[in-house]
Amino acid sequence: MKILNKLQSRATELTNLNNILALLQWDQEVMLPVGASDGRASQFSVLSTIIHQKITDPLLGEILQDLNGVGEELSAADQALIRVVRREYEKNTKLPEKFVADFARLTSEALPVWVRARKQNDFAIFLPLLDEVISMSRQKADFLGYNDHPYDALLDLYEEGLTTAVLDILFGSLQKDLSPMLQRRISQQKSIAAKLEKLPPMEQGVQVRFTERLLAEIGYDFSRGRQDISAHPFTTSLGHNDRRVTNRFNPDSLEFIFSALHEGGHALYEQNIGSAYSDSPLDEGVSLGIHESQSRLWENVIGRSHLFWQTYYPLLQEFFPHQFKNISLDDFVGYINRVDPGMIRVEADEVSYNLHVLIRFELEKGLIDGTITAADLPGLWNEKYNNYLGVTVDSDANGVLQDIHWAHGSFGYFPTYTIGNLAAAQIWHRYCLNDTDCRQTLQQGKLAKIRKWLTDNIYCHGALYPPAELLRRVCGEELNSSYFIEYLKNKPEFSL
Amino acid sequence: MKILNKLQSRATELTNLNNILALLQWDQEVMLPVGASDGRASQFSVLSTIIHQKITDPLLGEILQDLNGVGEELSAADQALIRVVRREYEKNTKLPEKFVADFARLTSEALPVWVRARKQNDFAIFLPLLDEVISMSRQKADFLGYNDHPYDALLDLYEEGLTTAVLDILFGSLQKDLSPMLQRRISQQKSIAAKLEKLPPMEQGVQVRFTERLLAEIGYDFSRGRQDISAHPFTTSLGHNDRRVTNRFNPDSLEFIFSALHEGGHALYEQNIGSAYSDSPLDEGVSLGIHESQSRLWENVIGRSHLFWQTYYPLLQEFFPHQFKNISLDDFVGYINRVDPGMIRVEADEVSYNLHVLIRFELEKGLIDGTITAADLPGLWNEKYNNYLGVTVDSDANGVLQDIHWAHGSFGYFPTYTIGNLAAAQIWHRYCLNDTDCRQTLQQGKLAKIRKWLTDNIYCHGALYPPAELLRRVCGEELNSSYFIEYLKNKPEFSL
Repeated sequence: MKILNKLQSRATELTNLNNILALLQWDQEVMLPVGASDGRASQFSVLSTIIHQKITDPLLGEILQDLNGVGEELSAADQALIRVVRREYEKNTKLPEKFVADFARLTSEALPVWVRARKQNDFAIFLPLLDEVISMSRQKADFLGYNDHPYDALLDLYEEGLTTAVLDILFGSLQKDLSPMLQRRISQQKSIAAKLEKLPPMEQGVQVRFTERLLAEIGYDFSRGRQDISAHPFTTSLGHNDRRVTNRFNPDSLEFIFSALHEGGHALYEQNIGSAYSDSPLDEGVSLGIHESQSRLWENVIGRSHLFWQTYYPLLQEFFPHQFKNISLDDFVGYINRVDPGMIRVEADEVSYNLHVLIRFELEKGLIDGTITAADLPGLWNEKYNNYLGVTVDSDANGVLQDIHWAHGSFGYFPTYTIGNLAAAQIWHRYCLNDTDCRQTLQQGKLAKIRKWLTDNIYCHGALYPPAELLRRVCGEELNSSYFIEYLKNKPEFSL
Repeated sequence: MKILNKLQSRATELTNLNNILALLQWDQEVMLPVGASDGRASQFSVLSTIIHQKITDPLLGEILQDLNGVGEELSAADQALIRVVRREYEKNTKLPEKFVADFARLTSEALPVWVRARKQNDFAIFLPLLDEVISMSRQKADFLGYNDHPYDALLDLYEEGLTTAVLDILFGSLQKDLSPMLQRRISQQKSIAAKLEKLPPMEQGVQVRFTERLLAEIGYDFSRGRQDISAHPFTTSLGHNDRRVTNRFNPDSLEFIFSALHEGGHALYEQNIGSAYSDSPLDEGVSLGIHESQSRLWENVIGRSHLFWQTYYPLLQEFFPHQFKNISLDDFVGYINRVDPGMIRVEADEVSYNLHVLIRFELEKGLIDGTITAADLPGLWNEKYNNYLGVTVDSDANGVLQDIHWAHGSFGYFPTYTIGNLAAAQIWHRYCLNDTDCRQTLQQGKLAKIRKWLTDNIYCHGALYPPAELLRRVCGEELNSSYFIEYLKNKPEFSL
């Protein structure tokens, strides 16, 4: 199949260019001298333009045309390659070049304005630009096309096949269960040991070494990646054997531990994709939601469990004797699982978290279908925080202005966080059907066994299957919220 | 001039792509996980191919054709832009694509073989591939074209306009003066203080901090660059405001100090190019030779002078009290200027250094014009080391196999080191005609004054003038060896 070879060689070139783009981004977050950001912006622009030209190349369109109807006789990988490249080609060709350029200009203008509005706690500063971003996002949905709801077109950008209808069901049952659960947990919760609230400062070098050890324990391969410091933790792929994580280290916060596990989960996914997919568009986690399921599985399901810390708390005490030698395992595990609904999504506990996302989902859906306007946002935001979380929002800076996503124009992104949380619980449930001693596996720190099952069932496939299909293959059913609710209901750590 | 705008926009794109290529290289030397080298090689290949397509694009050829004869009425910068892009276009279009690919394959094959031959001290292992590299380098010279000597074609790749005839004269006078000077210096030299020969180990963190301080003192701007660790020190430009240096830190060696000044010199040149040349091919040092003149000026002429250390030795003692508190300034300066001819070029003192280069020049010239064959090399190498340096080479590993350049196929590169040394002395002589208190300037550590003159006369121009023209403008005459010989003859540090 000469035509398939042509597609493969174009796909390889695009993958390499995207990996180079990822290096530009990584270096910007981790290494770039402060004075060099304009130069880096030019480099981004030049390389992105070349990538855009290549993914929208009419000759690529012809190749895809020629491959229409071809399928059954090909390997699953070849079929997936055609599907994935076609999806990228269509996403990019449906949006007119002028629209893409205008939208990029608008969001790069909106970003610093959002920063200023947040700093000055003044939503009005951001409102006119946000209004334009929303209006262009609606246009974007129209260009991309959809069956039922315009928001579907945007959701699909981040989670292939995800629809508003599916989310209505998932969030509907979450809201019904989570709001009451939240109130119950708070009332039952013991008070936090004061010494955990105010730990002696932890030295950065020791924090770094502890996370390096923790990453190695969960199976992160440092010969095919590295950990560095950045303002916000992230994971990025610069190639099949180059999956890098970052973290940040605050002397007074335990966040670094859970960020390491979170980014480590993303990285384990990427590091264990089959090597046959090197340099191909299949060499990546299939969607944001499935990716997030792995970061949350390692961070929360595994990483906040009492069983896990039975092995690793002594190690933490060894690294930080001054901080932890007089704190019991139970107190520590209770502390890292405390339920404490607040205004800020990224600081939320496991029970509150998806209520934060639910609020954003409801608002985005309304903004995109036109039933809500940008000016309504602060009022609706605060009302929903009060209703769902019982939280009084003290300022727009801590409320509607807290997230960067809308300034970026990333409508449709937020729900993938909840997809990740639900899928993590569902996949863990499935794992425990397979390994009926799963509690013991965890308690004994046999993480390699867990990682192997995840690799064989999820990681190795990369982007071979669309996310919903992958989940059906792993779990034998569709994504639903019941496993997550059960997981929270039964989580023994909440009673510590 | 619409046609000029077209050239500018293509030049900007190429400059950005070359800066991205430099990032791939920097990251490979400084950050890349060990397992990721194959992936990085693919990225290099994809990006280099795109750059090659763009620099050899027939449409670029047409633009350059249309600009033929245009000149007088343009600004100096526009004229230089046309000249520089035309030079790149011609260099790249003269070599057939198949030849370029074959040569790249050959040298990437030759590199590990050279490493093995050197490790096993067995020239015969490397000989067949070296023979091919030489034969292809001759072909390369024929493709590129030349007037007098085929070696001229290769010299011009690294130092625009440099010819074998010019080097015959420069090296001729160097050889005449340096060999006797070397013997005289050795016989006059005092013995080295034993405590300097065996310093207590220096802590890496302190070495790093000292070089950061030293770089800041000579005027390196850390907001537009950074220093990292790599196997071999280098300087690279990732953009107008992103000139990075690297160094290596051996606890038992003072090399890190002079590497910092050397790379710092390269970086000062690049950091002080006029901002009008941002994102243009003029935004770089004009040639390897002129670049090396600045690294050597800061490393040797300034950085090994007694006057310089009158200010900075107390700082060194403050950073490393254990090592230096009982060593006098004179002993230290005498030690860092000791003349000690040996087998290894990169460890050579200022008197020996250019004799090492002379030997390589004579051999390369003969290899390219066919009067020498690869098989003759070990014998000729050892003979010349004996004749010019009075050194007996104990093995091919320490002799003809010591440098990577031939395995890389970089014939014509070595002489730029000597161009740099000669130009450094000539430029410093010129500086002292302008600043008649130059000794006092140096003694008082007024490095900003020196840097300003260098910026105004050399750095700010970037690649505006061809190297020989730049030197004429700065010094009022051609490059010659007399200033370097005078500099060595009068250097008071040799008598310490």
